[in-house]
Amino acid sequence: MRIARFSIDGNVGFGVVEGDELDVIKGHPFAEFERSGQKVPLDKIRLLPPVLPNKVVAIGRNYAEHAAELGNAVPDVPVTFFKPSTSVIGPGDPIAYPSFSQEVHHEAELAVVIGRMCREVPRERAKDVILGYTCANDITARDVQQREKQWARAKGFDSSCPLGPWVETGLAPADIAEGLTIQCTVNGEQRQLGRTSDMVRPIEDLIVHITEAMTLLPGDVILTGTPAGVGPLNVGDEVAVTIEGIGTLTNKVIKRG
Amino acid sequence: MRIARFSIDGNVGFGVVEGDELDVIKGHPFAEFERSGQKVPLDKIRLLPPVLPNKVVAIGRNYAEHAAELGNAVPDVPVTFFKPSTSVIGPGDPIAYPSFSQEVHHEAELAVVIGRMCREVPRERAKDVILGYTCANDITARDVQQREKQWARAKGFDSSCPLGPWVETGLAPADIAEGLTIQCTVNGEQRQLGRTSDMVRPIEDLIVHITEAMTLLPGDVILTGTPAGVGPLNVGDEVAVTIEGIGTLTNKVIKRG
Repeated sequence: MRIARFSIDGNVGFGVVEGDELDVIKGHPFAEFERSGQKVPLDKIRLLPPVLPNKVVAIGRNYAEHAAELGNAVPDVPVTFFKPSTSVIGPGDPIAYPSFSQEVHHEAELAVVIGRMCREVPRERAKDVILGYTCANDITARDVQQREKQWARAKGFDSSCPLGPWVETGLAPADIAEGLTIQCTVNGEQRQLGRTSDMVRPIEDLIVHITEAMTLLPGDVILTGTPAGVGPLNVGDEVAVTIEGIGTLTNKVIKRG
Repeated sequence: MRIARFSIDGNVGFGVVEGDELDVIKGHPFAEFERSGQKVPLDKIRLLPPVLPNKVVAIGRNYAEHAAELGNAVPDVPVTFFKPSTSVIGPGDPIAYPSFSQEVHHEAELAVVIGRMCREVPRERAKDVILGYTCANDITARDVQQREKQWARAKGFDSSCPLGPWVETGLAPADIAEGLTIQCTVNGEQRQLGRTSDMVRPIEDLIVHITEAMTLLPGDVILTGTPAGVGPLNVGDEVAVTIEGIGTLTNKVIKRG
């Protein structure tokens, strides 16, 4: 099932996407919900970020080839950092090129959307705290990342976390481990291509690792690392992240106004 | 003026603290507000974290003596990292010793509370985005910090960000630059003692630096670094951060349940 968040005529809601239509949900998707039966054509609505995360917890260097391309080893413990809620944008929203960087990179990533409040999750229960999966782009000011020891500015600037287009609830960690194709194109040209089976640490391990330290809330998001092929974005570029079985997240890069 | 957030009989509100009483505010302190005239004795209420930050942006190594005590140089650009909203606790709330660390340290810090939504703040307007100041303790799993390249777990675990006891609105960046005493005691014994005039980068510069990259929201908090004297906390310890002109933030360390 594909759960989207949308706005129409200034109203915001959740709905289930089926073909070219969206069936509006009564309430929200973090508990049992009913469909209203009220159907809206997708071309009449604006898709929003599919969740409003309180925090985004991101994992670095979780694909060996990507770690190598930037001259890094695969770390003994996962590199774990935050992207703030103010960095989140939705499908079709512009990525505003920040004034303090001259080298902004795309990083296509599979995003895990948390469905329930949880802490110290045992590995065998990790799948139970997941609502579903969406596409993410861990937009990174590479030059700033290299200059600054901690990455709050390099990876936390406004519009550095596109998420969408919707949350696919029909996948399990086993599907991710078996391998979904993850791809990034810029202006239609392929830049990144990987398979989620190449993650150094699988989804369940990441959930154990993060919740050992901190509580995750419904709507919080985990970014699971990017495959090889990261590279620069320029103003005017259209960047698209496509994950097999989920969909495509497209954003255009604009000059910061 | 001292603005506190409190609960009484399950109701949450803001109030102005005067002596042993609190004058309940109509509405919230992020806009013009009226006092209700309804006064409550402080010993009848529970003080909560004085704000509920969407994000806490923290600055590392902003006191030269503290950078030196951990063997670090003062960085060319401020070390900037996040503590998530789930790490925030209030005055009197327990710090739960995390299971994944054997060396948890106190770090007394002056916290800046943001009063209005802002981005790309020019230096001369930095003071206008500040609601006031409170005490913070940037609780740090030092062993984890040394092992993990990014500090999300080491400084972002649950209860690692005590804030309080209230927001003092009567101070200006000039008072901070002139120098307020900042002190940390453990079980009544002094561990840290510094002056805010020893900050490497003053408040206004930090606001420019952070908002160059990201939007700050009302209630967001900036931690401005800790003076020398950081050290371990143990289960059963009572740790207190006192800042001249603001007040004292006290928390007890408990075993994580």
